[in-house]
Amino acid sequence: MLRLTKQETKKNLKQLGSNVLDQIKHEKNPALDVPIRTLSNVKYDPKSKMITMGEGLAKRYFFNIGHVRKFVQTIEAAAVAKELIDVGKHLSLRETFYRMKRTLPNSNINLVDEQEESNAAIEDLELITDASRELLHINANKLGSVAGKVVIEDKGDTIDWSKLGSGGWAIPSNVEDIIFKKVDAKFVIYLEKAAEWERLHEDRVWEKLNCIIISSQGQATRGIRRLLQRLHMEYKLPVYILVDGDPWGAYIYSVIKYGSISLAHISQELAIPGAKMLGLTAEDVVKYGLQKHLIKFEEVDVKRLEQVKNYDWFKDHKEWQKQFKLWKELNGKVELAALSSKGITFISDKYIPDKIKNKEWLD
Amino acid sequence: MLRLTKQETKKNLKQLGSNVLDQIKHEKNPALDVPIRTLSNVKYDPKSKMITMGEGLAKRYFFNIGHVRKFVQTIEAAAVAKELIDVGKHLSLRETFYRMKRTLPNSNINLVDEQEESNAAIEDLELITDASRELLHINANKLGSVAGKVVIEDKGDTIDWSKLGSGGWAIPSNVEDIIFKKVDAKFVIYLEKAAEWERLHEDRVWEKLNCIIISSQGQATRGIRRLLQRLHMEYKLPVYILVDGDPWGAYIYSVIKYGSISLAHISQELAIPGAKMLGLTAEDVVKYGLQKHLIKFEEVDVKRLEQVKNYDWFKDHKEWQKQFKLWKELNGKVELAALSSKGITFISDKYIPDKIKNKEWLD
Repeated sequence: MLRLTKQETKKNLKQLGSNVLDQIKHEKNPALDVPIRTLSNVKYDPKSKMITMGEGLAKRYFFNIGHVRKFVQTIEAAAVAKELIDVGKHLSLRETFYRMKRTLPNSNINLVDEQEESNAAIEDLELITDASRELLHINANKLGSVAGKVVIEDKGDTIDWSKLGSGGWAIPSNVEDIIFKKVDAKFVIYLEKAAEWERLHEDRVWEKLNCIIISSQGQATRGIRRLLQRLHMEYKLPVYILVDGDPWGAYIYSVIKYGSISLAHISQELAIPGAKMLGLTAEDVVKYGLQKHLIKFEEVDVKRLEQVKNYDWFKDHKEWQKQFKLWKELNGKVELAALSSKGITFISDKYIPDKIKNKEWLD
Repeated sequence: MLRLTKQETKKNLKQLGSNVLDQIKHEKNPALDVPIRTLSNVKYDPKSKMITMGEGLAKRYFFNIGHVRKFVQTIEAAAVAKELIDVGKHLSLRETFYRMKRTLPNSNINLVDEQEESNAAIEDLELITDASRELLHINANKLGSVAGKVVIEDKGDTIDWSKLGSGGWAIPSNVEDIIFKKVDAKFVIYLEKAAEWERLHEDRVWEKLNCIIISSQGQATRGIRRLLQRLHMEYKLPVYILVDGDPWGAYIYSVIKYGSISLAHISQELAIPGAKMLGLTAEDVVKYGLQKHLIKFEEVDVKRLEQVKNYDWFKDHKEWQKQFKLWKELNGKVELAALSSKGITFISDKYIPDKIKNKEWLD
């Protein structure tokens, strides 16, 4: 998927409408060409290092009892997106669901009954129009904070990420319209935990190491992933990932790096194949004497470890397979917060600088 | 609990240590006076409209097999807090747990094994020293965004909450040191959902209605509650709460207003007895025709409704009892996002302004 401009997005939305109108005028059964989003059409591409979608297309007809509901939902999603772009407003996925949940005239049939339906319609629309959900003015979740020597322009405001006190800039759900005015940083550190972000921020790591620090709380949102990707692509900044040492952390890393199965159609907008995993690794547990802070794996962790280990992008990766083997032997997880046992600012003063200096990361 | 200065906090911590030392010097069994935090010592006080703690005190002895572990943990928590204040750093609750998890010399006994232990020690320390966890440099979670016509000073930075683009200021876990330089707002709107905050922010509600908008995502953190309380107490700003219409939303409201059982000892620092619930109410469902957007209660919702209904601060409250009765009849919840069905900006242009103008709130 190529990055579209606002004008192109509008044009593609209009094209979708006029195609359907043309078919009606020519008394054809209106149809949409929808890329197939089933698992069989999703695969890991070792060349691009991304989870990508195949080329498969399916026709979706209006006069077809099995197709008509999805057909109408896709058209409605397009109508909502057009309305949003026209008035310059955005809606969340949940709000879009309610906006689409109209009752058809003279019936008791709702256009959508569950958010899964509107979500699927929006994902189809992304593929049909080649425009990401963000370009269609439909936003994902808002989460996360950022600090660093960066100045941006957003909604007419000039914002200096290095002058926002202890809180930092709150990352919006949609970062498409942000203009980078000055990026004076050498790399980006992404943290899975907001508490560790506060640790690094209080220790002014972004100033000392000349970097940008970004955190979510758990899985990274689309807004955070797009922000990381834009800094990586537009400013060639390395992205270092810091997650808890467990299969869940490995998965958070892999989603940022390779993309995810459910958003495979948008990997080119979200994935960062160059991202590196800084820690916590199984070796860290021994090196930093964190054994007593291991939290014993429960059955669900062991199961998850097996799953993650066998994902296409990990299963032929020697170093990662070694990691998974070591974790299985350790039989426990270790949290970033555990580094506090070595000293209040140990993660900021020693762990991160040493790791980066010695290029101790997993690729 | 009165608000202490930094100096007083340090003094009280020191006092705790010298008291214990004195007892040792006089060959007494070292003991701490710890307020009782069991449920029996917590009650709702209708006069102050706060969940408060009784006066009960218990002695905790060093030479007592049932007391010694907790005694040592409390002293260790005090030592960590003193260290943090001395070096001017903060730790999260989780980090503090790891910091306290030392192994006693010549033994295989850890000072704490579970975070519940360090949490309890920190809560006891709050009571013994009369200083909130924030003053002891131990932080809760970081979450939420804020926008509005307010200028603050924090960590040497001057931050204008009205000039932060689409993201807003990310609220830190600890807002004790923030200095308000200019507060040009008439009231505060708190929203349970980040997506609705983005709705109001895009519609520039804070500018149009001259207010401050603050959101969490789900339950409000201590940082958010302290920020709301400080604006309410120091600038006499009314606080209006917007939550989903369900028992969970009612509870989020009640925690902000009256405090919570688990943090009863700190209600005076966190509760906002003047807070008002703007919506969503059961009446809103009918008034705004949201019936078709009701999400049928599941068993867990019905159970929660019964629990919340019977809390001391609700059970003699006529208007709230009417609410709970109506919700039971509706037998479903309704989300703030459902207002989008009435128009993209309906919540910003109509719902909130009308409610405030007509003083349509629950007290």
